[in-house]
Amino acid sequence: MYLRNAWYVAAWDHELDAGLVARTFLDEPVVLYRAGDGKPVALEDRCCHRSMPLSLGKRVGDNLQCGYHGLVFDPSGRCVEVPGQTAVPPGGRIRSFPVVERWKWIWIWMGDPALADPDLIPNWWWMSSPDWQVVKGPVLHIKCNYQLINDNLLDLSHTTFVHADTIGNEAVAEQPVKTERIKDGARMTRQIIDCPPPPLYAKHLWFKGNVDRWQIVDATAPSYCDVWIGCAHAGQGATPENAPNNAKDTAEFHALSIGTPETARSTYQFYAHARQFMLTSAEIDMVYKRDFLRVFQEDVVIMEAQQDRMDRATDLKWIDINVDAPGLAMRKALLDLITAEEAGPERRRA
Amino acid sequence: MYLRNAWYVAAWDHELDAGLVARTFLDEPVVLYRAGDGKPVALEDRCCHRSMPLSLGKRVGDNLQCGYHGLVFDPSGRCVEVPGQTAVPPGGRIRSFPVVERWKWIWIWMGDPALADPDLIPNWWWMSSPDWQVVKGPVLHIKCNYQLINDNLLDLSHTTFVHADTIGNEAVAEQPVKTERIKDGARMTRQIIDCPPPPLYAKHLWFKGNVDRWQIVDATAPSYCDVWIGCAHAGQGATPENAPNNAKDTAEFHALSIGTPETARSTYQFYAHARQFMLTSAEIDMVYKRDFLRVFQEDVVIMEAQQDRMDRATDLKWIDINVDAPGLAMRKALLDLITAEEAGPERRRA
Amino acid sequence: MYLRNAWYVAAWDHELDAGLVARTFLDEPVVLYRAGDGKPVALEDRCCHRSMPLSLGKRVGDNLQCGYHGLVFDPSGRCVEVPGQTAVPPGGRIRSFPVVERWKWIWIWMGDPALADPDLIPNWWWMSSPDWQVVKGPVLHIKCNYQLINDNLLDLSHTTFVHADTIGNEAVAEQPVKTERIKDGARMTRQIIDCPPPPLYAKHLWFKGNVDRWQIVDATAPSYCDVWIGCAHAGQGATPENAPNNAKDTAEFHALSIGTPETARSTYQFYAHARQFMLTSAEIDMVYKRDFLRVFQEDVVIMEAQQDRMDRATDLKWIDINVDAPGLAMRKALLDLITAEEAGPERRRA
Repeated sequence: MYLRNAWYVAAWDHELDAGLVARTFLDEPVVLYRAGDGKPVALEDRCCHRSMPLSLGKRVGDNLQCGYHGLVFDPSGRCVEVPGQTAVPPGGRIRSFPVVERWKWIWIWMGDPALADPDLIPNWWWMSSPDWQVVKGPVLHIKCNYQLINDNLLDLSHTTFVHADTIGNEAVAEQPVKTERIKDGARMTRQIIDCPPPPLYAKHLWFKGNVDRWQIVDATAPSYCDVWIGCAHAGQGATPENAPNNAKDTAEFHALSIGTPETARSTYQFYAHARQFMLTSAEIDMVYKRDFLRVFQEDVVIMEAQQDRMDRATDLKWIDINVDAPGLAMRKALLDLITAEEAGPERRRA
Repeated sequence: MYLRNAWYVAAWDHELDAGLVARTFLDEPVVLYRAGDGKPVALEDRCCHRSMPLSLGKRVGDNLQCGYHGLVFDPSGRCVEVPGQTAVPPGGRIRSFPVVERWKWIWIWMGDPALADPDLIPNWWWMSSPDWQVVKGPVLHIKCNYQLINDNLLDLSHTTFVHADTIGNEAVAEQPVKTERIKDGARMTRQIIDCPPPPLYAKHLWFKGNVDRWQIVDATAPSYCDVWIGCAHAGQGATPENAPNNAKDTAEFHALSIGTPETARSTYQFYAHARQFMLTSAEIDMVYKRDFLRVFQEDVVIMEAQQDRMDRATDLKWIDINVDAPGLAMRKALLDLITAEEAGPERRRA
Repeated sequence: MYLRNAWYVAAWDHELDAGLVARTFLDEPVVLYRAGDGKPVALEDRCCHRSMPLSLGKRVGDNLQCGYHGLVFDPSGRCVEVPGQTAVPPGGRIRSFPVVERWKWIWIWMGDPALADPDLIPNWWWMSSPDWQVVKGPVLHIKCNYQLINDNLLDLSHTTFVHADTIGNEAVAEQPVKTERIKDGARMTRQIIDCPPPPLYAKHLWFKGNVDRWQIVDATAPSYCDVWIGCAHAGQGATPENAPNNAKDTAEFHALSIGTPETARSTYQFYAHARQFMLTSAEIDMVYKRDFLRVFQEDVVIMEAQQDRMDRATDLKWIDINVDAPGLAMRKALLDLITAEEAGPERRRA
């Protein structure tokens, strides 16, 4: 059950610089490459002749040549050359997918190409702003359904239990969250006032005494999660109710994540951290590269274990608790969109 | 096809001393641990909230805490705490399984808890007697149906072919066996009079000349096998017909085995050897630890190969030979119990 | 979808010299061995007693003894001995398959034994002629349907793209091929006149200037491929139309291949090279052993990738190009034979 008319991240920009990239999205094999002018291209990764994956072939100018019999396909998926003959037979065509390069990522549209409006890509401007420092994460290949990642990121109470050694904190799970419906998704807001800083902050940043923290997660369909994390010295007037105020000495960053379904039971998670503090610190870069990778890997263990137990249940029933409200709102928003897409004539979500 | 109302071995006692144990029995994931007072507990290994395996959580006093969102379950399976809220929602409950610690093993009851009578555990008193020395075997995880293990242990004629280098002996396969129905199972008796001792006995024990041997296997549903093996100097009046007599210089032991189904095609085999001779001999301990492990591993190869060929057969037909009589009697006893259990209102087997 | 009434290669002759060989052909487990007189025997690799693979047993004279309970089977599949009893029970029989040793291979017939005429084995006399030097290839286990191998060998235009570093050549893909129907199969003929020799030839043989080359592939059902490759100095009057003429300094060899289906998605490929030049050259032997193995392994990558993409397609459509004509003719010939076999009373193909 996928939302097909949506942008998904297919790859990091630098992955395509290194050559052909073969992945599967929404059960369909796709090959990605850069045309001669550098523009990203995404084609069905299966030659229409004898099913050879084109990702085992090579780029020739703007085109892709099959490594078995040498058929050549242009970026639109049209076969333009068949070695040993002058005419291309009817049906010489593979699927081409709309792609856009933005925010250091290559975005792909697996649904109706006519609806592929680049304005539907989330506005994650921090990824390309000189005022923010971006640390890219590796591509995580997780053996779980992508919605478990949405659930995970919309519920940061789990940091207390799963990430106790890194970003977790006893205080987190006890704080109530605020849930709001936003367009095509849900927002979770949690403010934690006057608490000790979590281990990583205490170690690397300038926080010695208590802090005020906020966690604001905007999740929108199908799997865009902007986790906005902030921390400031306590005592500057923040309350559990007010939005992050203009505190001094603020450390804030956005953890951005997209879960692109490979299959119903496996997902590529792309994530990055964009921060507005200590922009040139290699030490802080390493915190995001190494320590937050550990955080994400702790979640991978969780989500793959969940998927296993879900697969093995004959009669799965879940109970809901307070912290699930944002995740449930997000699931509802996504389900509504998928239901509408499957029922209707395909139409733009805008 | 399982007998659900029966005790199965879930773990060795010492495994629970080391922490949480995660296993699957009869297709159901189970987590085992010791409560604060040391009493064993067995719970469904799937949180009712979001399907997280509780075996990735931690014990808190008598209870188990989920490692994802911190829900706490007591030994009865009731959720007693949800972090961040005061009330536990309806349905906050997972399955709890009756468990009993006996004969160094943790026994679990996967069926109707109301029928879980500890007296139904086989009386394998040698396991806890100071007059017998026990050597525990490792837990074998075998990719075969548990009934193949029953067959294997009830038919020791295979020792001639499978275990030729260890406990096998040309004489064994040629000896007729006696089969008897016993309650919920079958007994196989084989007496071998005036034969050379098998290799392991000749090497480690005091037998130089010929011996009289007996093999008496009591197998009872679902998969309890007591293999009583004895050996005495020949010439003390034993005959193929009479039961083991009070020969001098007897070496006897019980090889005790339980095959606990993980799935229809995989089984945990728990086994131990209890002997009444050379109780303090480290050398004999090693024979059971190392040489008999090799014997069991030789059987693992056999049974996994059988399962593979059974799975791949489109029209499986077996012929029966004389030595199958005990195994067939056991299969019949087990089938009767399973049929009754599935047909009827569940009722105690006693 | 298999042709059952056909000879398949089951093993190399030398494999049986080394002991029991266990393989699966057309989904059926088979064990091969040599009887006491050296004659090859093929039996169902599953004891009729308790499904034990007989390949885990041992040969006793002409017979095979099960490694579990010692039942003995003669080359006809009849059980002739059951340890511990005098009579063999009814049904004591496993399948026996006709086998013939020819051209250094053991050929097996998986269909109706009454139709197993050895004259239906292809006449690959070079394999046993003192005038030809044979280099055996290893047995390749390929995770693809066997027909993909037929396609591959009948279309040597792929050498340009797949084997560019070894036997490939820009000239090949551009040359038209001639396709002929032959009995139960297809012939592909390609003549390449006055072209540079391919890398391997230039390096190891006596060709310095341009050459005339021919590739004539006879493929017959189910998967016999005789790839006749020739090369001679250019300028001796060969034309694209005439068959290989009696040029001097000819280097010619037959690459012989049989794809024996293990399952619908996996195949054993047996191949050998028989050449009529430089018969005693160890260097040339090594070219076939090592360099051509690399060529075959390049094809393995291709064919396994094809199979993967075919398996994952929901609506597979192939377009055909000119070079497919021989492969399509072969597929048609094979399909006709399979259809007739499945429809009719089984009858000899002769």
